[in-house]
Amino acid sequence: MTTSRAPIRQASVAARVVTLRNGRWGERADRLAGEEPLEVRVAGPRGEPQRVAVTMRTPGNDFALAVGLLVAEGIIAPGDVARVSYCTGLGAEQAFNTVLVRSHHALRAEIAMRAFDVSSSCGVCGKTSLDDVVVRCGPVTDDLRVSADVILSLPDRMREAQRAFARTGSVHAAGLFAPDGTAVTVIEDVGRHNAVDKVVGWTVLEGWTSLAGHVLMVSSRLSFEIIQKAAVAGVPVVCAVSGPSSLAVRTANALGITAVGFVRGRNMNIYTHPDRVDREA
Amino acid sequence: MTTSRAPIRQASVAARVVTLRNGRWGERADRLAGEEPLEVRVAGPRGEPQRVAVTMRTPGNDFALAVGLLVAEGIIAPGDVARVSYCTGLGAEQAFNTVLVRSHHALRAEIAMRAFDVSSSCGVCGKTSLDDVVVRCGPVTDDLRVSADVILSLPDRMREAQRAFARTGSVHAAGLFAPDGTAVTVIEDVGRHNAVDKVVGWTVLEGWTSLAGHVLMVSSRLSFEIIQKAAVAGVPVVCAVSGPSSLAVRTANALGITAVGFVRGRNMNIYTHPDRVDREA
Repeated sequence: MTTSRAPIRQASVAARVVTLRNGRWGERADRLAGEEPLEVRVAGPRGEPQRVAVTMRTPGNDFALAVGLLVAEGIIAPGDVARVSYCTGLGAEQAFNTVLVRSHHALRAEIAMRAFDVSSSCGVCGKTSLDDVVVRCGPVTDDLRVSADVILSLPDRMREAQRAFARTGSVHAAGLFAPDGTAVTVIEDVGRHNAVDKVVGWTVLEGWTSLAGHVLMVSSRLSFEIIQKAAVAGVPVVCAVSGPSSLAVRTANALGITAVGFVRGRNMNIYTHPDRVDREA
Repeated sequence: MTTSRAPIRQASVAARVVTLRNGRWGERADRLAGEEPLEVRVAGPRGEPQRVAVTMRTPGNDFALAVGLLVAEGIIAPGDVARVSYCTGLGAEQAFNTVLVRSHHALRAEIAMRAFDVSSSCGVCGKTSLDDVVVRCGPVTDDLRVSADVILSLPDRMREAQRAFARTGSVHAAGLFAPDGTAVTVIEDVGRHNAVDKVVGWTVLEGWTSLAGHVLMVSSRLSFEIIQKAAVAGVPVVCAVSGPSSLAVRTANALGITAVGFVRGRNMNIYTHPDRVDREA
């Protein structure tokens, strides 16, 4: 098989972050996990490329990701990979975010249908760029202010409500909190995105039309999709036990969302729009 | 809005597990995080339901999940939800795994196209049941044996290779190891599935046709999709720092994969096919 040159995009990205460490505020340089969309296309020896998947990934080993995904989905067999290349004719922004895998053999006719006849809850669906997301929901302009002490209390408040985690040790949770730290609802799921969708859906079923004035806390890291879901729901402050990806920070910045990560003990990092966090208390 | 009765399926599932605790082997009852596919359908007041997404979720709050997902994707607005119900005419297995959300208003014509014109890397794509997966790749019959000591050493061996984690603190990793614990490759990604796809794809690009005789280690929990990807690649032993879901264990059992979870310090849990782990050492 042959592969075209595979430049490594940034696996991690530099950022400035507002830090709280044991009661002291500071600011420092940080590294964020790189996250960008990768579109995977597949084609036979002469056929037209067909789009199979869009996945949010950390740049690097892109050809391996494309091939591994196609093998996992049963679309190509390991010995069938003839050539892997970037679709570099798509402009600078997408040049290294689209990979084409050519097979030695013609693809089965059913493949395209099967591949397209699905969807995901990943938040990337149907969006071709970050700009689409911004246009669709507009920036969050909520003037909510939350005290740092309330944010620091959220992991414990959420854990109290996490019954399944206590039993299984391996379930994510998302919680919606009032600015004084009162839990509105905490819902668990094996999937990070599902937990956030469940919280938003729960409020819709309760008759809410917006999550303005509230804080969303997740037990996981902050991905692009979680920020995007928060923006659509109108949540101004999103906190996480783990860290945000590069695209999550870029999106939170553009969508007016305060993104807080690594909320653990007496520590937190504020990545975007820090003015909503009251640092006096 | 009205909602039909929403029975709660199991958020956690009972299981027997072989345990290693500080050098002592035992066996005990355990609880696994529940994981089952949920298909989300949407329709206008009179229109035919359209399938929008299949997501692997923990049963419970299914109506909230369906509504939240549709709102996040911009398919319905919060005030448009007219009725939410299970599609109970689909047989016992799927009765409470398919939810229909009806909108007060006709859906935009473009919606179905947009929703279907995507895919995910989640491993659920195109599969309607667990049986499809079993049929497609067949059970793994590898007679590999790995010592418990090697398995206990994998988290440290993987962390040594996790450069991005050291810098960002929030990246997953998957590693492929020989039975003596030698790392073949360790690859990081913000996405759990991506990390596994990258490892499998890396071996394909290196000319491998199977991962038989090797151990896959992931830094995360074990979901259905990771077991499914491992089975397609022919990996007989899959280890994880966190725990498996109910469906991961069911799938590993059916596909002949040894699933090991909570590999931490001197401890581990073996959920399926424990004979591949040499417990003498």
